[in-house]
Amino acid sequence: MANLFFIPQYIISGENALQMSAEHLTSFGRKALIVTDDMMVKLGNVKKLTDILEDSNISYVVYSGINGEPTHSMIDEGVEIYKNQGCDFLIGIGGGSPIDSMKAIGAVSTNGGSICDYMGKKIEHTLPPTCAIPTTAGTGSEATKVSIITNTNTGVKMLLSDPKLMATLAIVDPIFTLTAPPAVTAATGVDALTHAIEAYTSKKAFSMSDIYALSAIQRIFGNIYEAYSNGSNIDARREMSIAALEAGIAFSNASVTIVHGMSRPIGALFHVPHGLSNAMLLNVCLDFLKQGAVERLCQLGQAIGVFRSGMTQEEGAEAFVVATKSLLRTLNIQTPEEFGIQKEEFFSQIPKMAEDALISGSPLNTRRTPSKDDIMELYKKLWEKSE
Amino acid sequence: MANLFFIPQYIISGENALQMSAEHLTSFGRKALIVTDDMMVKLGNVKKLTDILEDSNISYVVYSGINGEPTHSMIDEGVEIYKNQGCDFLIGIGGGSPIDSMKAIGAVSTNGGSICDYMGKKIEHTLPPTCAIPTTAGTGSEATKVSIITNTNTGVKMLLSDPKLMATLAIVDPIFTLTAPPAVTAATGVDALTHAIEAYTSKKAFSMSDIYALSAIQRIFGNIYEAYSNGSNIDARREMSIAALEAGIAFSNASVTIVHGMSRPIGALFHVPHGLSNAMLLNVCLDFLKQGAVERLCQLGQAIGVFRSGMTQEEGAEAFVVATKSLLRTLNIQTPEEFGIQKEEFFSQIPKMAEDALISGSPLNTRRTPSKDDIMELYKKLWEKSE
Repeated sequence: MANLFFIPQYIISGENALQMSAEHLTSFGRKALIVTDDMMVKLGNVKKLTDILEDSNISYVVYSGINGEPTHSMIDEGVEIYKNQGCDFLIGIGGGSPIDSMKAIGAVSTNGGSICDYMGKKIEHTLPPTCAIPTTAGTGSEATKVSIITNTNTGVKMLLSDPKLMATLAIVDPIFTLTAPPAVTAATGVDALTHAIEAYTSKKAFSMSDIYALSAIQRIFGNIYEAYSNGSNIDARREMSIAALEAGIAFSNASVTIVHGMSRPIGALFHVPHGLSNAMLLNVCLDFLKQGAVERLCQLGQAIGVFRSGMTQEEGAEAFVVATKSLLRTLNIQTPEEFGIQKEEFFSQIPKMAEDALISGSPLNTRRTPSKDDIMELYKKLWEKSE
Repeated sequence: MANLFFIPQYIISGENALQMSAEHLTSFGRKALIVTDDMMVKLGNVKKLTDILEDSNISYVVYSGINGEPTHSMIDEGVEIYKNQGCDFLIGIGGGSPIDSMKAIGAVSTNGGSICDYMGKKIEHTLPPTCAIPTTAGTGSEATKVSIITNTNTGVKMLLSDPKLMATLAIVDPIFTLTAPPAVTAATGVDALTHAIEAYTSKKAFSMSDIYALSAIQRIFGNIYEAYSNGSNIDARREMSIAALEAGIAFSNASVTIVHGMSRPIGALFHVPHGLSNAMLLNVCLDFLKQGAVERLCQLGQAIGVFRSGMTQEEGAEAFVVATKSLLRTLNIQTPEEFGIQKEEFFSQIPKMAEDALISGSPLNTRRTPSKDDIMELYKKLWEKSE
């Protein structure tokens, strides 16, 4: 069987990646639309970028309207600015939302119509050159083919998914992550770990996605605690930012599984940030998926060095699960209760969350197919284990 | 320090990759120029491709004029056909020469002028969409930024090197390699192994190139003997074709070192195919480069499973060298003498070859810098060890 693998054509990573990007951005076009949010402007991150554009005589216009989860009207506004200002390429800088929005604006700019018509649609025409600059080490959206935009008229979260949405250039500069507080470093780092574990144990995994999943997991085990406890360590920050990119490449190609499927409903109903709800769920989901993925989890045990010679495959897999749980404990990931969710409210929503999780399709990629009952059980365990 | 990593944006690999590519080629344009050679037409490989284009209603014109190493007049002719026939994208199918030629034709089609002006020039404008379909598992040219075209007016081999030359889509279908005879499988496979070892031990190696180099080396050690001795084993052929791609990605990003530096002059003077001259040289060059790359070679020993606990780093590196030499013996790589080179002629050319090797710059990427004397000594050893 053949597999399609896709990835940003250019990736610049490491310290000073932003400076090194000037040469490439010059060839992208004459005028950039910078898609971002007000916080990025306030933190000075946008200025770091515009200084470089100015040095290279690249014109730009800043659209910092992506405050909160991206909506169709934000995209409409972005497309209008892009066209009226005569832009010919795009740069998204920030977390997942500005980067997702940049992709959507790019898609509408060459494919026409309104973003509201794009749900499930194949993107026909290639986007203008796009550059993604993530400022957190987690989502991996700089390396994915998806964009999630809410149609606020209908309340529907539209999933746009097409390889053409992949950024042309990803700039992964750890400088932006240096100021992330420990709780954010932990949640976003575990988000990336979740992407990589799901990609590696997905039914859709294949050899080219595997090498990125494995590499990401090794980097995260080697560096997340240091980045969490000593945020100014640039080496640990660099490794975590590359790991997040690699994990994004892995899951964009191999798909996610049960954790993401169960995570989205928690986000939708209780407004838990996506990275955090993934991190909350990893613990209980690992126990579940292990039965279908013993060989794969054992390989992960080998990759992080907890597999000892003489162990059976089952023991190797368990060693990986134990190591992951122990890592999660040291990172003090918030529990649903600590986040402020009410127990009764949570339990009353379990049937709906389980249904929504299954509808998303992601749980079916797990190597052990979960029933609705299984998923309800896991939501209960998530609460109970956290008590 | 930041690093630029580049790679074809889309890679379709595995059995039936060619069939799976139709959908993507449809979005590339209306009419393809297929750049190839007469042998590809005769073997029916071009027909496999054109059948798929016809099923997808994509027009095409075949230019099969790349017979032998690409020359400037072949490129001129290709550009003329591309323009006159109203093509808007390119497909290169064959070994390294047709794929290199496709890149050059693409570059001239959007950047103008004559290919003779392109030596050392930065490519300003993006190429039309390009698709590379390698039919041997070795060169990795489907994943590199280089193209080598001979200006037959001046006799100069022009090296074009620019990330813009990277193919948009690489189609790596093992079906094309099934009929390669054992000697070709061995030489091209060792060529890929050489790319990966050089990339991993290059001074310019970085983490994103490393993961491809490591993966390629593991695949080659696991599959080359099977592909060599049982050519119809599609699993081994698939793994070798992916390994060649990975090795191409690795060296395109991390550069090659002493083996390639010394290999090119043998090719130029004695018309030894590039893959074979690399394969001939790997043995003696490994001994030389080991001194500067003990840690890295030890890691390769771990990756292929010949590092045993309790070994020193030096012993681990040596274990990798021994394993590689033993592999090369089982593959019966032709010696320079077996290829038909005369000893006296070879020895008389050693000073010039050593000079040309150094001028190429590649040897300077080695973690142990070779002098001209070192290189002359290695050429002598190459002959003596083969006697």
